[in-house]
Amino acid sequence: MDFEVFRNVHIKYIEKNIEEVIDENKLTNSQDYLVDELKLFCLRSGKRIRPLLFLLGAESFGAKIDERIYKVSAVIEVMHSFLLIHDDIMDQSDKRRGLPSMHSLLYEKFKDLNFNPRIGENLALVLGDVLFFIALRALSKLELPNGFLKDFSECYINTGYGQILDVIYSMNKKYKEIFEEKKISLEISKLKTAYYTFFYPFYLGALFGKRNVPRRDLEGVLIPAGIAFQIRDDILSTFDENSGKSNLSDILEGKVTALIDFGKYDDNFFEMYFKPRKTDKEIGFIIDAIRKSGAVESAKIVMNELFELSLKNLEKIDIKNKEVLMDLILRLRRD
Amino acid sequence: MDFEVFRNVHIKYIEKNIEEVIDENKLTNSQDYLVDELKLFCLRSGKRIRPLLFLLGAESFGAKIDERIYKVSAVIEVMHSFLLIHDDIMDQSDKRRGLPSMHSLLYEKFKDLNFNPRIGENLALVLGDVLFFIALRALSKLELPNGFLKDFSECYINTGYGQILDVIYSMNKKYKEIFEEKKISLEISKLKTAYYTFFYPFYLGALFGKRNVPRRDLEGVLIPAGIAFQIRDDILSTFDENSGKSNLSDILEGKVTALIDFGKYDDNFFEMYFKPRKTDKEIGFIIDAIRKSGAVESAKIVMNELFELSLKNLEKIDIKNKEVLMDLILRLRRD
Repeated sequence: MDFEVFRNVHIKYIEKNIEEVIDENKLTNSQDYLVDELKLFCLRSGKRIRPLLFLLGAESFGAKIDERIYKVSAVIEVMHSFLLIHDDIMDQSDKRRGLPSMHSLLYEKFKDLNFNPRIGENLALVLGDVLFFIALRALSKLELPNGFLKDFSECYINTGYGQILDVIYSMNKKYKEIFEEKKISLEISKLKTAYYTFFYPFYLGALFGKRNVPRRDLEGVLIPAGIAFQIRDDILSTFDENSGKSNLSDILEGKVTALIDFGKYDDNFFEMYFKPRKTDKEIGFIIDAIRKSGAVESAKIVMNELFELSLKNLEKIDIKNKEVLMDLILRLRRD
Repeated sequence: MDFEVFRNVHIKYIEKNIEEVIDENKLTNSQDYLVDELKLFCLRSGKRIRPLLFLLGAESFGAKIDERIYKVSAVIEVMHSFLLIHDDIMDQSDKRRGLPSMHSLLYEKFKDLNFNPRIGENLALVLGDVLFFIALRALSKLELPNGFLKDFSECYINTGYGQILDVIYSMNKKYKEIFEEKKISLEISKLKTAYYTFFYPFYLGALFGKRNVPRRDLEGVLIPAGIAFQIRDDILSTFDENSGKSNLSDILEGKVTALIDFGKYDDNFFEMYFKPRKTDKEIGFIIDAIRKSGAVESAKIVMNELFELSLKNLEKIDIKNKEVLMDLILRLRRD
């Protein structure tokens, strides 16, 4: 079975369960319309890669995918929406999945009703928190494998540490001085993408299976694939207008991406890249400098090595449906 | 035993456990100094009313207070710190417990290292989230009573709903039109203070006891006491300069307090009260109008009725150490 078929089998059940997880929290409360906004936000069309990897992890280790396992997969997607709502506040992003970000949407809804210029952000911040509490409540009603909640919380602690690095090193004034040696972007990609999006969803699913889970072996497959995927995304979001991401946002926000870590740049470039506001002319200069820096070529070499490592490690492990995971990794490299 | 003695017996164990809950999450990570900031924030001196009520609830229903129960009491205080960090971002408060709020502190620390003017807020937002994940991780390691996590998450969903009402009705443009009839402040106090600070901590503690917990009876004691306490706090924070709260912040932030709900005001007053920026002259006018509105007198009548109701309901229930809880309620009324 390829990953697309796997996706088509499960996606509608994931989404039905997202709906249920959130609807359970309507307390015939005057604020139920905001709970509906949360539901619509969570149901916006997305790849659902995390809940799908969760289901694949469960199936790969012999679990039968039932209502309980679908429910946990929905919780993982709800947690993702909570983090997206908070991320968009931090990045001051207006858009998410082709529609207004939660704080933009709430600002439009409330600006004629409230004098506080921060009304959108403030409501989005609380609603993000509430979404987490809702996810926890859904989990609390299920029988979970031993140790699941510990790994679940560690997943998000690591993601938080990745987000902290991202916030600190974006628009950094001292970047050039402090980090000439380290590849900060790889550290951020490891925590924010490889662990968060790839390893943990699959691993948390595997915990529902019938066998001992070889954690290190799974890390050996999913961490290199996840970092490689992020390198690819860093390249595409700058150079491919069809990537679907809000174009150039990494440059506008002065983010430490693979393109920054893998190129050779002078002080003038760093100064321009890391400052918060940029003219169109400066953005043109930055793109040009990245193109000439050799970053794309160097990053692609590392990316391909990581994809190869991931596939080599996958060959060595014994799981059901190995071909679905292999197809996903090949697809990440290709798409 | 009076509540002060109870507090003196337990406070150092609560604080030792707060330290442990947070220190466990140092991952020999480059960001450990930020985890230390979280620890210092959680350990700032406070009344610790929530963990103390949790311990009292446990003891009242026959639990022996051991390491595990102290650990959960620490988690409840850590959760409170997480909410305070996010609240201070929303209210743009510079101070918390006599020291800089988390976002102010982080802004000072990072402003020379980062160009992003939102660096303090953004880091505080993530660190708040991380504190929640840390609290959940601590819980995940403990054996918890059946249903505990469900009630725990419902506690914070309700608190979130209260916070949403607070955000929506503060600085509201349509307040006068929409809410002439309702007492919005009582609804907010019920969710944000009575349930969050009084009922749930005690009730969650009681779940660790050896008996069935009569939830409705406990609500009958702790909800009226909590609302009454908040009414008292609303009055003091406007009229008592020694209340220890950042004075006049309710007026500056255009909050719907008991003083707004219980007084008679004209359109001119509402217009001035709910707008976001106020001159000293306007603040003087507002205080004067509140003084003449009869709000303090009306609110005090309701407050006293609620304290009486709470004490009457307390007499009817059968718990150990009833005198400690009674002393606390009398103290809330008096102090």
